[in-house]
Amino acid sequence: MRKMIDLNSDMGESFGVYHYGADKDIVEFISSANIACGWHAGDAVVMDQSTKLCRTHQVAMGAHPGFPDLVGFGRRNMICSPAEIRAYLIYQIGALQAFAHSQGIELSHVKPHGNLYNMAGKDLKMALAIAEGVKAVNPNLILVGLAGSQLCQAGYEAGLKVAEEVFADRGYRANGSLVPRGEPGAMIETLEEAVSRIVHLVETGEMIANDGSILKIEAHTVCLHGDTPGAASYAKAIRQMLTAKGILIAPMAEVIRQ
Amino acid sequence: MRKMIDLNSDMGESFGVYHYGADKDIVEFISSANIACGWHAGDAVVMDQSTKLCRTHQVAMGAHPGFPDLVGFGRRNMICSPAEIRAYLIYQIGALQAFAHSQGIELSHVKPHGNLYNMAGKDLKMALAIAEGVKAVNPNLILVGLAGSQLCQAGYEAGLKVAEEVFADRGYRANGSLVPRGEPGAMIETLEEAVSRIVHLVETGEMIANDGSILKIEAHTVCLHGDTPGAASYAKAIRQMLTAKGILIAPMAEVIRQ
Amino acid sequence: MRKMIDLNSDMGESFGVYHYGADKDIVEFISSANIACGWHAGDAVVMDQSTKLCRTHQVAMGAHPGFPDLVGFGRRNMICSPAEIRAYLIYQIGALQAFAHSQGIELSHVKPHGNLYNMAGKDLKMALAIAEGVKAVNPNLILVGLAGSQLCQAGYEAGLKVAEEVFADRGYRANGSLVPRGEPGAMIETLEEAVSRIVHLVETGEMIANDGSILKIEAHTVCLHGDTPGAASYAKAIRQMLTAKGILIAPMAEVIRQ
Amino acid sequence: MRKMIDLNSDMGESFGVYHYGADKDIVEFISSANIACGWHAGDAVVMDQSTKLCRTHQVAMGAHPGFPDLVGFGRRNMICSPAEIRAYLIYQIGALQAFAHSQGIELSHVKPHGNLYNMAGKDLKMALAIAEGVKAVNPNLILVGLAGSQLCQAGYEAGLKVAEEVFADRGYRANGSLVPRGEPGAMIETLEEAVSRIVHLVETGEMIANDGSILKIEAHTVCLHGDTPGAASYAKAIRQMLTAKGILIAPMAEVIRQ
Repeated sequence: MRKMIDLNSDMGESFGVYHYGADKDIVEFISSANIACGWHAGDAVVMDQSTKLCRTHQVAMGAHPGFPDLVGFGRRNMICSPAEIRAYLIYQIGALQAFAHSQGIELSHVKPHGNLYNMAGKDLKMALAIAEGVKAVNPNLILVGLAGSQLCQAGYEAGLKVAEEVFADRGYRANGSLVPRGEPGAMIETLEEAVSRIVHLVETGEMIANDGSILKIEAHTVCLHGDTPGAASYAKAIRQMLTAKGILIAPMAEVIRQ
Repeated sequence: MRKMIDLNSDMGESFGVYHYGADKDIVEFISSANIACGWHAGDAVVMDQSTKLCRTHQVAMGAHPGFPDLVGFGRRNMICSPAEIRAYLIYQIGALQAFAHSQGIELSHVKPHGNLYNMAGKDLKMALAIAEGVKAVNPNLILVGLAGSQLCQAGYEAGLKVAEEVFADRGYRANGSLVPRGEPGAMIETLEEAVSRIVHLVETGEMIANDGSILKIEAHTVCLHGDTPGAASYAKAIRQMLTAKGILIAPMAEVIRQ
Repeated sequence: MRKMIDLNSDMGESFGVYHYGADKDIVEFISSANIACGWHAGDAVVMDQSTKLCRTHQVAMGAHPGFPDLVGFGRRNMICSPAEIRAYLIYQIGALQAFAHSQGIELSHVKPHGNLYNMAGKDLKMALAIAEGVKAVNPNLILVGLAGSQLCQAGYEAGLKVAEEVFADRGYRANGSLVPRGEPGAMIETLEEAVSRIVHLVETGEMIANDGSILKIEAHTVCLHGDTPGAASYAKAIRQMLTAKGILIAPMAEVIRQ
Repeated sequence: MRKMIDLNSDMGESFGVYHYGADKDIVEFISSANIACGWHAGDAVVMDQSTKLCRTHQVAMGAHPGFPDLVGFGRRNMICSPAEIRAYLIYQIGALQAFAHSQGIELSHVKPHGNLYNMAGKDLKMALAIAEGVKAVNPNLILVGLAGSQLCQAGYEAGLKVAEEVFADRGYRANGSLVPRGEPGAMIETLEEAVSRIVHLVETGEMIANDGSILKIEAHTVCLHGDTPGAASYAKAIRQMLTAKGILIAPMAEVIRQ
């Protein structure tokens, strides 16, 4: 069995005159792109252009739906009902899917954005509403969630394919959650350490938590930030170093299928 | 050949706590519903419910996309580029289509809303951008426009099926445009006269303009308002009287196919 | 000392074509109106008209700012930072104040809307951010909060005048919080009982909680709903019955001053 | 009489996570800032920060209201009624004024943004609605319009102080309108020529139009772009060169007063 992993990044988060992220630079180095759907970021014209970018670079294209909170960039907790969450997913995925189909592409996955992702990672009821929304649009879509989270759990319960996600540059606690930003060990500082952790994870299914304990993680995809300084060169280096270690970079559908 | 016509009405224009229109009352009497897509009106939860209403009552379900102008209800002219218009159509139709598919329904048509409809009726370039957006989502969708307008023209040029629309309660000028509200002859005051005009139109393809001249109109669908007092009883009466005159009420797809 | 109380109601929550609430009917019976500021509800034109209504009926006019969540009508929890909350208050109060000044009126008070009110009632940090926002616009504005809540506490700490609010139609727990809707005792079913409770409260400063215990409440203003069926006749009856019991209905500024 | 002119620039057009313009760099070289009010750009937090920037650098602070079209950045024509326009102005100016007052600053002026400015420049009815909105908030506010335009005319008719604006880097037609972008002579290519034109204008009240004819222009303020590459160094150079030519840079209130 080939050792393989997907590299994903959020894209299409520009809006109107506002430019955001290094989409054109980073798209070369990833295998999956999560495209904003016009609620927390992105607009219809940006979605059309982002679809083109995915098609041109042949990266797997997924939906990146968020809360209806543009000014907060979807990064604030909102308490919505399950019926609202489900409908919000259908709406946003459907809108993006139309752009995909108009260019002859199928969506591969759905990765909730920001605090929709974070809240659902810890709230199974909310996560199930997300999974229901994904399934309602297309039961073949892969649901992306934090590895080991309630969001992944909901995907499995709903009968969806699930891509368990890890963060290359973040430390983990023994319970599988990320060390919160600002706390010691939150960030994996060097590229070398990040790569080494990913390689170890792919080869063994193990990640060292911040207390030294060993976490068992089945990881299908690694999140690379697209909106930080040096994002593209970081992505390029990660890709090259993983490849050099004999790890194949492939879209999440292939990683899961394996 | 059976004499037949479609009766359509705008629906799903509620938003959040705001209730609008008599959807549940009028849906019984129409054959096609145009569902708002969350921009000029409607929201994701309302779209889900409106889809259910269309399915339950087996009316043909279409998209009713509008300008991004909720506070103006899409009733104000906005100058958008063709690329914007096209993308706005793809986005809104795609979002609604996902709700339709989630309930096992295919969208039948697209009727632009308010001033998007009005502007495109007189502006072929804008109308072509609309037609391109419709076609990009699904080339089998019917484009609904004011009979004889540039919007219908654009649909034909794009190779789409077109439903030419008339207004039961509005007077027409010799050039095929509606007599503007506020001018004499703008409104057809009685139900009897409205029905008589529709019957005459279906039987002969002719409508008497406000100057007495004869307009040749190929009409496939009649617009019934859903947001005026007495809308449902008006719709009911129109339907009964047309049926009594031997005119079949059928979804626009069947009227066009004929 | 005269026995007096203020009657307040939310108004100006229409938006664009969407009509909401019975403003014109209820305004006759209240002494203070809380006007939506265009975020959770209301728009600039509605704010202009609502100002006129307050001026014509000489009711005290206050701002009713809410979360930036129109589709949720401000009734969903959102986690915003104190800096955001403060700025959101300044923005919304400032916008409404300009309409008030344009018609020669001073704003009398600020009552946060929906879940902004509810969350701040239990969260002193958030409540202090609200109080800071109010104070930044005008330190003479009265802050309205649930009687005994953290929101009132924050107002006092910030040096603002505070109007402590009670609900005529709601049951109270021994800790001063409302019995949640859906639980037994949540609603005070009859008008007579509601009036009797208010009279008792004004005369004695006491309210009977749902466990029979006695709550000490300093109440300055009673909230009357404007968006329920029969809202205006309920308001009229409350006003007449309170007046008949010798209780003066007066704007909150006068009640507090006493 | 001192030769003087104001240099103004649009600022505060960032929104949420989206950064826009070189506010911190350009603010040093201008005498008046036009701050976006949350509709075409800007948000409440940005408005608070922009107010601080104006106060720190002691530049005259004005409101920069726009159409309710965030995704279009207020750069698309919208047909709004005079009552809407007036209310939109009151709302936006009022919101910004509250931030100004909270920091002890008075707003000095109002400059409509984008296509609100452009449309009103040619449409007296719309321009009068703008002037009415400005006046309703504060009759001492200066209205900024394109020199010689209907917007300035409306300001005079409404009894407002008016600042007539010119563009340093744009060519003019004989009728006083700007040469449209894309046409020959639209842009004044060199800094030297731009400065020389401004100096000539300040000294003589004359501008050479693109057909060689002489335009009489009473100019009070020069617009400097803040969102183009090199904006700050352009502003710095303009300021230095004008000062070297003996022209005083002063807020528009002083230029008008003269």
